[in-house]
Amino acid sequence: MTSADLDTQGAATTLLPGAGAEFRSWFAGRTRATTCRVTRTPLAELPGWSIDDATGNLTHDSGRFFTIEGLHVRTSYGPVGEWSQPIINQPEIGILGLLVKTVDGVPYGLVQAKMEPGNINTFQLSPTVQATRSNYTRVHRGSRTKYLEYFTEARPGSVLADVLQSEQGSWFLRKRNRNMIVQVDESVPAADGHYWMPLAELRGLLRVDGLVNMDTRTVLSCMPAAFFAADRDLPAGDMAAALIRSISGAGTPLHSAETVLSWFTAAKSRHELAVRRVPLRQLPGWHHTPDEIAHDDEKHFSIIGVSVRTDDREVSEWHQPLLYPSGQGVVAFVVKEIDGVAHLLVHARYQAGLLDAMEMGPTVQCNPGNYPGGAPAFLDYVRHAPADRVLYDTILTEEGGRFYRSQNRYLLVDAGDDVPVEVPGEFCWVTAHQLSGLLRHGYYVNVEARSLLACLHSLW
Amino acid sequence: MTSADLDTQGAATTLLPGAGAEFRSWFAGRTRATTCRVTRTPLAELPGWSIDDATGNLTHDSGRFFTIEGLHVRTSYGPVGEWSQPIINQPEIGILGLLVKTVDGVPYGLVQAKMEPGNINTFQLSPTVQATRSNYTRVHRGSRTKYLEYFTEARPGSVLADVLQSEQGSWFLRKRNRNMIVQVDESVPAADGHYWMPLAELRGLLRVDGLVNMDTRTVLSCMPAAFFAADRDLPAGDMAAALIRSISGAGTPLHSAETVLSWFTAAKSRHELAVRRVPLRQLPGWHHTPDEIAHDDEKHFSIIGVSVRTDDREVSEWHQPLLYPSGQGVVAFVVKEIDGVAHLLVHARYQAGLLDAMEMGPTVQCNPGNYPGGAPAFLDYVRHAPADRVLYDTILTEEGGRFYRSQNRYLLVDAGDDVPVEVPGEFCWVTAHQLSGLLRHGYYVNVEARSLLACLHSLW
Repeated sequence: MTSADLDTQGAATTLLPGAGAEFRSWFAGRTRATTCRVTRTPLAELPGWSIDDATGNLTHDSGRFFTIEGLHVRTSYGPVGEWSQPIINQPEIGILGLLVKTVDGVPYGLVQAKMEPGNINTFQLSPTVQATRSNYTRVHRGSRTKYLEYFTEARPGSVLADVLQSEQGSWFLRKRNRNMIVQVDESVPAADGHYWMPLAELRGLLRVDGLVNMDTRTVLSCMPAAFFAADRDLPAGDMAAALIRSISGAGTPLHSAETVLSWFTAAKSRHELAVRRVPLRQLPGWHHTPDEIAHDDEKHFSIIGVSVRTDDREVSEWHQPLLYPSGQGVVAFVVKEIDGVAHLLVHARYQAGLLDAMEMGPTVQCNPGNYPGGAPAFLDYVRHAPADRVLYDTILTEEGGRFYRSQNRYLLVDAGDDVPVEVPGEFCWVTAHQLSGLLRHGYYVNVEARSLLACLHSLW
Repeated sequence: MTSADLDTQGAATTLLPGAGAEFRSWFAGRTRATTCRVTRTPLAELPGWSIDDATGNLTHDSGRFFTIEGLHVRTSYGPVGEWSQPIINQPEIGILGLLVKTVDGVPYGLVQAKMEPGNINTFQLSPTVQATRSNYTRVHRGSRTKYLEYFTEARPGSVLADVLQSEQGSWFLRKRNRNMIVQVDESVPAADGHYWMPLAELRGLLRVDGLVNMDTRTVLSCMPAAFFAADRDLPAGDMAAALIRSISGAGTPLHSAETVLSWFTAAKSRHELAVRRVPLRQLPGWHHTPDEIAHDDEKHFSIIGVSVRTDDREVSEWHQPLLYPSGQGVVAFVVKEIDGVAHLLVHARYQAGLLDAMEMGPTVQCNPGNYPGGAPAFLDYVRHAPADRVLYDTILTEEGGRFYRSQNRYLLVDAGDDVPVEVPGEFCWVTAHQLSGLLRHGYYVNVEARSLLACLHSLW
C-alpha cells in the first residue's frame, strides 16, 4: 500500500440514489469545501504518542483520549480457549447525540457531514454531536463542540433516549458511549456542516453503502418505537406487514419478555471469561515493526498510525493510531415470520472487551477470513441466500475515528421455512419491539445488532 | 480477640418475636442438630490456600473459588482521588435461587437454615439454593447441591425472576450472582435443613436482627411486585397507604421512568473511574502480618483466615480467607410522601468494584468509623431521627461466606418535611415500583439498596 491510497477520495455523492436533491447538493458542497489528507505514519514516529518503555503500550502524551494495550483472554466459550490481542482502552464516556424536531407532524434530525481519518469516503453522516469526553472538555485545546449544551443540559421531558451502550467488544476494552436523542421545540439553526433532514429520509440513506456512520446507526437504534411511524410507502408482501408488527409491538412474540431475559441470563452464566490487561509488548502471536503491530498469520487486524490534516475539525492537524481490520466482515440477521410477526434471530455472543462479557449480537457476525476451516453457524446460509430472500444488503463501515477502513456487509435475510422455530440454545427469536425495549438499557444489544436494527427501519 | 470468641454461639432463636411457633421449633431443632466450629487461622498457614510468590495474592490451590488481590483506584468522584485496597475477585457466577409455590392462594417460599463461617449467629435463613459455580459443579468434591436442577433446568413459564445482580462493590471486583425465583406447581418436599414458609412470614422475619441473610434479601428484592399482595394487616397512618401505592405502582411518580434513566446515565457519565488490578503485596496504606492483612489506620477492613468444621455442608472441613469490616455500617433510605406516593431517595454511588462503576444505592451507606471528620450527607439525619419517624431499624449482616461478622444497621426513615423535594444532583426520588422495574435488569440497584427494598416489604 502507498500513502497515495490513503489520500482523500472525495465523498460518494454519486452513490446516493435514494437521497433528495437538496440533501445531495448540501452534502456535495460540504465535501468540496473541506480539505482533508490522511497519510500513514509509522507508529514509532507518531507525534504526541509514546511507546511506554516498560509495557510497550501506546499512549497519548496528555494521558487522555485512548491507549492501545494488550489483553489476555481465557474462556470456556468457543473453540479457542486462550489468546492474547491488542485492545483499545478508552475508559471515558463520550456523547453520541441526535437533536430531533417535529415540524408539521414530520420528525427531522440534525445530522452533520463529518470526516474521520479511517473512513474510506472521508465524509459520512454523523449525529448532531459525536464527541469523546477528551474532545468536548477540550483536552486538545481546539474549538468548542457545537450543540453540546443541548445534551449536557437537556430538560428532563425532552430526552427521548439516554443510555450507555457498548461498542465493538473485540476491539475495545469496556468501551461505552452515551447515546442520546433530545427533542427540541425551539428553532435551532443548522450550523456549518450540519443539516436538518426528515428522519424518514435519513433512514432511507441507510441503504447507501458507507454513508450513515456507526454512531448515527447506534443512536437511531435507541429511538423509541413511536418515532418509527409508517411515514413512507410500505413494500408489498406479507413480510412487510410482519415487519411492521414486529416493530410496533402488535401481535404476540414467540417468547415473553421474561423468557428472553431468563434465556440471556442463563447464557451469560454458562461460561466463564477471564480477561487481564497485559503489556502490549509481549503478546504471543503478534509482532511489532516500526510501522505497525500485526498478527503473525495476518488475521484479525493490525494497529497502524496516521497523520491527518483538515480544516473540518476542532483541530487542524493530528496524529493517532487506528485499528485496521484484516478483511471485510459479515453482519446478518436471519429474519423469520412467526405467527404473522417478523422475528430476528439473536445470538448470545461473548466478546472479550464487553463490560459483562456477553451481549445479544446478530445471527452472524464474523470476518470470514478468520475462519478458513469451518464457517460459523448461518454464515454460508446468509452469504448464499437467493436474491428474493435478501431484504437488506449494504456495505457499512465502523467508527472511522478508531478503525481504518473497517467494512462490514450488513444483511437481513428472510429465512422463510429454511430455519426452524427450534434453534440451538445460544440463539433466540425476538421481535424488533422487544429489542427496542431492551435498548432503553445498556449492554443488552451489541453495536452490530444495533446497526442492523436501525437498517431494518430503512426497509420502508 | 481469642479464638474462643469465634466459636459457635448458637442460633438466635430467642430473638424471633415475630416468628410462628412451627418455624421457631424447626429453626431451633435445625441449629441444635448441627455442630459447627469456626476458628481463626493465620493467613500464612491456611491449608489449601497459597500466597503467590510474585504478587502476594491469596489463591486456592484448585485455582477456583475466589482470590484476594490488590486494586488500584483513581477517580474524579469523591474526596479521595486515589487509593489502593485488597479486593475479592470471584469471576464465576453463582446461583441464588428461591422456589415458590402457591397453596390455597398463599405464596410460600422454600428457605434453608444455613451456616456460614462469617455469621455472628452461625445460622441464617438462606434461599433454596445458594451456591457458587465452584460449589455446584463440585470442585470441592463434596455432595450435590440440593434443588439445583429446579433452577438450571427451569421451564420458561415458571421463572418469575432471573437476573445477574452485583454484590458489595467496595469489597468484590465485578462480582455478580444469578438471582432466580422459580415457581413450582408440583409437590416439592422440604429436605433436611429446608422449610416451606409463607412469604409473608418470611418478609416479617426481616424485622429480626441477623436472621434473614443477604442472599435471601437480594432474591426477595427481585420478586415481581404482583407477589407482594397486601396479605398482612396494614399499619395505621397515611405513610402506610403511601407505601402501598409506591409498591403497587398506583399514583404518579415524581419522575417518569425516562427521566430516572436519563438522570442515572448523566450521573454515570459525570466522573471517571479507572481501576487496575495490582499485586496484593505492594498496597500503600496496608500491611501484612502472618495473621492478617490490615489497613494502617485500622479503617475499612482486614483480611483474616478461618478454619471451619461442621456436619452441615457439602464438605465437613475447610479453610478460607474472610474480609473483616472494621465496624458497624449504616444503610438507610430516606422516605418521603410526595403526592400521596412514598418515594425513596436513591444515591448514584460509585464503587470501585462495580462492573459499570456506579449503581443506585441507598440514601446513606457508609461505615461511620471511616469518617471521623465530616459525616456523609444524611448520615447524622438518619442516625438521630426521632423514633416516630423510624419505619424500620434492624441490624442485618452481609454474606457470611465472604465477610466476617459484617453488620449494618438498616434504616427506613420517614423524612416528612425535613427533606425537600429538590435534592442535590447525585440523589433522585423514586418509587418502590420504579426500583422493582429496574431490578428486572442487572446493575441498576446495589445490594444494600436491594436489601432495604426487601425490608420495606416487612412493614406490613
